[in-house]
Amino acid sequence: MEIRLKCENLQRAGSFKIRGAMNALLQLPPQQRKRGVVAFSSGNHAQGVALAAKILGMPATIVMPENSLKTKVEATKAYGAEVVQGGVTAATRDTVAREIAERTGAAVIPPFDDERIIAGAGTVGLEIVDEWPEVAAIVVPLGGGGLISGIAMASTSVKANVQVYGVEPAAGNDGEQSFRSGRIVTIDPPNTIADGARTLAIGERNFAIIRERVKDVVSVDDDVLLDTVKLAMYRTKLVIEPTGALGLAALFAGKIKVREGVAVVVSGGNLDFSLLCR
Amino acid sequence: MEIRLKCENLQRAGSFKIRGAMNALLQLPPQQRKRGVVAFSSGNHAQGVALAAKILGMPATIVMPENSLKTKVEATKAYGAEVVQGGVTAATRDTVAREIAERTGAAVIPPFDDERIIAGAGTVGLEIVDEWPEVAAIVVPLGGGGLISGIAMASTSVKANVQVYGVEPAAGNDGEQSFRSGRIVTIDPPNTIADGARTLAIGERNFAIIRERVKDVVSVDDDVLLDTVKLAMYRTKLVIEPTGALGLAALFAGKIKVREGVAVVVSGGNLDFSLLCR
Repeated sequence: MEIRLKCENLQRAGSFKIRGAMNALLQLPPQQRKRGVVAFSSGNHAQGVALAAKILGMPATIVMPENSLKTKVEATKAYGAEVVQGGVTAATRDTVAREIAERTGAAVIPPFDDERIIAGAGTVGLEIVDEWPEVAAIVVPLGGGGLISGIAMASTSVKANVQVYGVEPAAGNDGEQSFRSGRIVTIDPPNTIADGARTLAIGERNFAIIRERVKDVVSVDDDVLLDTVKLAMYRTKLVIEPTGALGLAALFAGKIKVREGVAVVVSGGNLDFSLLCR
Repeated sequence: MEIRLKCENLQRAGSFKIRGAMNALLQLPPQQRKRGVVAFSSGNHAQGVALAAKILGMPATIVMPENSLKTKVEATKAYGAEVVQGGVTAATRDTVAREIAERTGAAVIPPFDDERIIAGAGTVGLEIVDEWPEVAAIVVPLGGGGLISGIAMASTSVKANVQVYGVEPAAGNDGEQSFRSGRIVTIDPPNTIADGARTLAIGERNFAIIRERVKDVVSVDDDVLLDTVKLAMYRTKLVIEPTGALGLAALFAGKIKVREGVAVVVSGGNLDFSLLCR
């Protein structure tokens, strides 16, 4: 069957995240623009918000856990953001960000449970249907649900019969459990190489859309995922981070049964090369 | 300045080689097509000829040295070619290929010193000028000279003032020496990670064109080249083999002084990942 890749790894700042960040920032009132924005993220959302703020000339503060990858911290700083790390852990970064917002008047930009973020991510779905009207299915990595809820909302609105699938790492399949049970399931911090899908629970706004517009949610093991990253590099000559390879991995593992044209969303390419070499 | 990449790493079989191979095979008379083709190569030419022959339904035999990378041998076989390796070394593969041609009636497809190969590679230059009429310079990896001679011939024919530069690994700079001295210089087998540019001397047909139509030939050290491969993966999310990164490396090292739009030819993406991890 025909598989086409939607290459958000080639997107600015290396992932789809700039779409939601830019949309959220563009909607801030003029007086808020001067006070800037604050976000908490150890991953691609940090770089997306930092670059969007730079493009729009707004100050940005990003709260990142102390143990964040140095390359991601450096990249975020390179986009001109102030990075706050002192004493920050994954559990406290949300609180620290909100404290900064209260003190400075900066607007908090959430990573996924936000209508502006969902709408921005949804442009991925619009572009897929626009560029490939015959597309039968769209396969999307699932973390907090920002990307898939936007894509499902947008693509099924312009093409009702397109089937949207979500893919998670098996070790962190809270989304699969939530989809099956019909309520948001929260898990313990999962151990998976798909660092963009380590969220503990889907957002409320995201889940409401997923329940209504997503066909199915499946999961793949980390070993299949790592093989897929390697195969993608050998065969497509594209650098894809593990989370970005979830869709391709699900197809290779036979987890999604489709027979016609499939668009696979490659959500990002910010790969930690030490992982690949290991 | 603006730099655009001509991504032959995304080409079928992972490099520009299929262009020349396809052009050469298409010009064989019908009775020759049945007898097939033979080529000697341990690299991308092998895969280019094998895939072109497969597409055209012709038998292909590829002579590869016994110590060729297993991944390249497997890829060549996967395209349906017969691979001959027994007792073959880099020094004898030419002779072995010619013996096979005499015995079987197969046509020898040379890697670069051939007008059909040069013309096929030249389509890269036509596409660059067609897609980007304002291009001021084209930077091209230089091995045996097939790619750069084709690009120089084609691009300067349609845009007289475009400047074509060749780039070699410093350890194997026979082309730079030849360009400076005005005669073909032959070197000992060089020790460089740019395996596609380990040729000992430029071809005669290629050199005649290079002398006339290439602006300059420069060289870069292997350490710069390896850094460039890594940087390209981090920033462009593209897998580029060392030979394919020669042009970018020359720009980063300040070896080519241009101030306007530069097209950099990324000749291939068949990277040996163990090299990268090392």
